Amino acid sequence: MPRVVVDVMLKPEILDPQGQAVANALPRLGVSDVASVRIGRRIEIEFTGEPDLDRAREIADKLLANPVIEDFTVRVVTDETAGAPS
Amino acid sequence: MPRVVVDVMLKPEILDPQGQAVANALPRLGVSDVASVRIGRRIEIEFTGEPDLDRAREIADKLLANPVIEDFTVRVVTDETAGAPS
Repeated sequence: MPRVVVDVMLKPEILDPQGQAVANALPRLGVSDVASVRIGRRIEIEFTGEPDLDRAREIADKLLANPVIEDFTVRVVTDETAGAPS
Repeated sequence: MPRVVVDVMLKPEILDPQGQAVANALPRLGVSDVASVRIGRRIEIEFTGEPDLDRAREIADKLLANPVIEDFTVRVVTDETAGAPS
């Protein structure tokens, strides 16, 4: 069933301490080739009818993202393009 | 620059109170055609060299996701496929 996915990420100029904590932990796992880690939110919205991108954008703007520090993108995802669980 | 995106979502059978809170708030915005909202995490990993999917999968498994309650998917994203900010 198609759904709308909203990706919310901190703006590039905003510091991401959570991502930095992960990046700093990586050498302990033996990983040394990671330049940066940034952590945001992924929200999946299922509509009762057709997925509505404009509606999803409105929801994201009012409820899901803080436009002062975050950017968001909105897209329709079908199960085929969502990718198989790893 | 290509990076690896890890999407972490609660397993479908796990209750998502955060998403439910958003879904319950929607009628107050005049939105009545949303069936469900689920909130997860999106992690962007930038490698110093080539993006390494297997490495990213290992990081996700050990550090980013709780495999008891969460599923994750790993994919390479270039700036072209990432979508323009809305």
